[in-house]
Amino acid sequence: MRAVMQPEPLGLHQVFDRCETLFADRPVVLGGAAGPTTTTYGELFAQARAFAGRLTELGLRAGDRVATFAPNTREHLLAYVAVPGSGLVLHTVNIRLSGKEIAYTVEHAGDRVVLVDAALWPEWSAVALPACVEHVIVYGDIAELPERHGNAVVSRFTDPSGVPPREGPWYRPADENEASGICYTSGTTGWPKAVVYSHRSVYLHALTLCGADTFAISEHDVVCPVVPMFHANSWNLPYASLLAGASLVLPAQRTDPAGLAECFAAGGVTFSAAVPTVWANLVAAVGAGEVDPNALSSVQRLVIGGSAASETLLSELAELGIEPVHAWGMTECSPVGLIANPPADAEAAVAAASKSSQGRPMPGLDLRAVEDGVPAPRDGASIGELQISGPYVVADYYGAEAGAVADKFVEHGGKRWLRTGDVVTVDERGYVRLVDRTKDLVKSGGEWISSVALENHLLAHPAVQEAAVIAVPDPKWEERPLAVVVARDVDAAQLRDFLAARVPRWQVPDRFEFVAEVPKTSVGKLDKKRLRGEYA
Amino acid sequence: MRAVMQPEPLGLHQVFDRCETLFADRPVVLGGAAGPTTTTYGELFAQARAFAGRLTELGLRAGDRVATFAPNTREHLLAYVAVPGSGLVLHTVNIRLSGKEIAYTVEHAGDRVVLVDAALWPEWSAVALPACVEHVIVYGDIAELPERHGNAVVSRFTDPSGVPPREGPWYRPADENEASGICYTSGTTGWPKAVVYSHRSVYLHALTLCGADTFAISEHDVVCPVVPMFHANSWNLPYASLLAGASLVLPAQRTDPAGLAECFAAGGVTFSAAVPTVWANLVAAVGAGEVDPNALSSVQRLVIGGSAASETLLSELAELGIEPVHAWGMTECSPVGLIANPPADAEAAVAAASKSSQGRPMPGLDLRAVEDGVPAPRDGASIGELQISGPYVVADYYGAEAGAVADKFVEHGGKRWLRTGDVVTVDERGYVRLVDRTKDLVKSGGEWISSVALENHLLAHPAVQEAAVIAVPDPKWEERPLAVVVARDVDAAQLRDFLAARVPRWQVPDRFEFVAEVPKTSVGKLDKKRLRGEYA
Repeated sequence: MRAVMQPEPLGLHQVFDRCETLFADRPVVLGGAAGPTTTTYGELFAQARAFAGRLTELGLRAGDRVATFAPNTREHLLAYVAVPGSGLVLHTVNIRLSGKEIAYTVEHAGDRVVLVDAALWPEWSAVALPACVEHVIVYGDIAELPERHGNAVVSRFTDPSGVPPREGPWYRPADENEASGICYTSGTTGWPKAVVYSHRSVYLHALTLCGADTFAISEHDVVCPVVPMFHANSWNLPYASLLAGASLVLPAQRTDPAGLAECFAAGGVTFSAAVPTVWANLVAAVGAGEVDPNALSSVQRLVIGGSAASETLLSELAELGIEPVHAWGMTECSPVGLIANPPADAEAAVAAASKSSQGRPMPGLDLRAVEDGVPAPRDGASIGELQISGPYVVADYYGAEAGAVADKFVEHGGKRWLRTGDVVTVDERGYVRLVDRTKDLVKSGGEWISSVALENHLLAHPAVQEAAVIAVPDPKWEERPLAVVVARDVDAAQLRDFLAARVPRWQVPDRFEFVAEVPKTSVGKLDKKRLRGEYA
Repeated sequence: MRAVMQPEPLGLHQVFDRCETLFADRPVVLGGAAGPTTTTYGELFAQARAFAGRLTELGLRAGDRVATFAPNTREHLLAYVAVPGSGLVLHTVNIRLSGKEIAYTVEHAGDRVVLVDAALWPEWSAVALPACVEHVIVYGDIAELPERHGNAVVSRFTDPSGVPPREGPWYRPADENEASGICYTSGTTGWPKAVVYSHRSVYLHALTLCGADTFAISEHDVVCPVVPMFHANSWNLPYASLLAGASLVLPAQRTDPAGLAECFAAGGVTFSAAVPTVWANLVAAVGAGEVDPNALSSVQRLVIGGSAASETLLSELAELGIEPVHAWGMTECSPVGLIANPPADAEAAVAAASKSSQGRPMPGLDLRAVEDGVPAPRDGASIGELQISGPYVVADYYGAEAGAVADKFVEHGGKRWLRTGDVVTVDERGYVRLVDRTKDLVKSGGEWISSVALENHLLAHPAVQEAAVIAVPDPKWEERPLAVVVARDVDAAQLRDFLAARVPRWQVPDRFEFVAEVPKTSVGKLDKKRLRGEYA
């Protein structure tokens, strides 16, 4: 029996039309080339309509790709609205990729137009631009621009277009599975892989992020997405904020502690999200007296994701009066999948343990930990690879060569499961705890050692700022852990003693390497692939 | 360009699997024949699995209809899970319909099984049961039951079935547009009309109700749905609560002030929802010293819907330390469509005005006020019929005779709009204010008089408990308003003076009828059709 409900597609039109109609008066503070400016959603949508008119004038057809090469700025947000709001597909190019990788993703996506931040012109102009790109539009303060870049005509965002702004409602997809955006995963092996978001998946995920028990993004919030807008839709915070009518504060390039503190104080930010390093640096700057803690007084919740946060960081944030929200995600999951909010009615110990886990699945998601093809028991101890399924999880990568990504998915119980590559435990209440990345687990004498657990213990030592543990080949034990640390006034023997009090003696790394900085991937994660290359 | 996200259907399986897996320990207090019992979601789902096993054993096929004839009880909730959780369609029969109407809806839906509360056996057994019904299952305390009712075999819910409980995940629809439930509208003209909810619409609506800015239903809530479970899925509160993991408290038949207060105090209820009369009676009972206000101390938010709430009621609730949440809905909208939460950053006067309006649309919905086929300006003054569109709004009624419901919808801008029959204004911020039902507006001397506005003014008089204003034919003015009131120690002249200070003199009703109780429809709304019949 079929119901007869309206076949209204889920999509960004519901987000944009809603925000423009209901929240026109809401203030937004947007970083940009000329420094932060305060405006309103009404004004922002008027600017997006002008940009949309210009994109249409360029002869783009529904489904064509428009790329951005930009930090978190006003113009980037305009593209977030104008591109999918015109039926086009937004490709947010990762500005931290190599020139060769950038050219690959632009060609792979078939971008016809690219919007570039002038501050990134040196990096962008060095890219050997594929022939698909017809227009490069540059915004921001820059004196000289060439007429062409590759085959593309270069123009300024501020050039008068002479075309009328888009009118009427925003683009409503005929099919909610139409693409709204493309983001390439920062895989450490092979070329980046294309994740294509649909109008349906983005809407569902944004609606879910507005849930009282997820991120609770609300009209009463001032949201500052620190996580880059070129990375997994900035964890979908811009679209969730537009849906909720939350005010937005975009920091542009100012993600250092002093810059963020200024940004938070100026905008009255209540909610923000970033990788652990960003918050660890902010906490350290407060501790060192470089940042006034009063600058953070409006901040209620800070999401920590992208990498596992240490318990130390969680308690340091809590001591500043800020609620830390630990979350887990993947570009392939739109991206937030798990949130570590404590269960209702939980005793303090259970609540604390749950908050430091990777969390429980958001509504709509199903998960399992699989060991040797069999789901592991939910006992908080049995380990397995985390697999995820749901309406905002990818079923495939766009344009991948046949067979190239077959090992990323398994079929079971009528569902397609994304293999996350994370080794986890799941407890009785559904909380997932990261043991390690599949490829980062250390196998020593037939036993598994979690690099993540060792890193978290090391980070609890007051002298340690950063820690990465990798496996190095060992003739006797097959593999042994090696710790790469950033630390002051501590030596290997002291750290070994510190760890020995916390984990079995055989898990304590034999080697410690002291470095000035642990190398990171393009999205700020520990680059263990590079470390293995250096120390193996 | 099509995205490749997982084609996972939206549906109640996501609600049930989630609740059973994550919230098994959460306590729930469920009214039933044997009085309230405290259990857990784990136990509740085990019981639902036993019931589902029994339904399967009866030979039902996917899409078959199973009806309930029950108040808000444990067994009703079991049907809410076991029926759609087995791929069957839940028809919640309105127990307040006449026997003839009940028989009509059961036959129209083609119900094969009916679950009946023993307390309602006298009403149920008087129904001339259509031939489609094969099984009547009765729960609760009843000494004697016949072997047959019509053609149906009568059995007790507690009879041992000897069949194994359902195992594995709950029913996952192949197509998210499959029906999950049927509810008949309590139209005051003609036979009831069938609204068929889909797995998709119920999931989307429940997810939306969990939003921080809608009802914010959370795992930390204890939700008491007072609105009947036979009426529009109890405003979808049971499914939203299961999705969020909110504790549920079901009051069974105890919806009188003393019963509710006991229920709220026993369960620690934080959130409840009902029509204005229920809350007005509760407030009056507190005022009269019949209910201890401390019994309400856990209550945070009370939703008022189904009919427009007076400003008096809103402020009386606020004085009790409870946040009143005014909402508007229709069975056809799943059912909540508008919520009167105040805008962020609003001044006190704007906030107060917005809270007494019918509210702004929930995410996903689009609305307009249409006068003579043209959308009225959003100026807070121009009136028009409210029309609604969105993915959880009906596109048609199930099994309606051709043409019978054609005037309930209009097509415009590629969308199908439900004509709500409510005359409203919409202001600049998107707040909708009810002027009247289309058919209740009074046309006097060529000018419109809002019956709702007069009723709200009358309810602000301390001596008035209930008020209904209707149009009666008038030889000179075409129509004139007539007020039917429940009041103590006040006469018509005093009420006329009271109104004359608040509305133009020509709008003041000429006639006042003092009655013991204003007649209500089967879902608790003022029965103006009956009043017009009596006084016209």
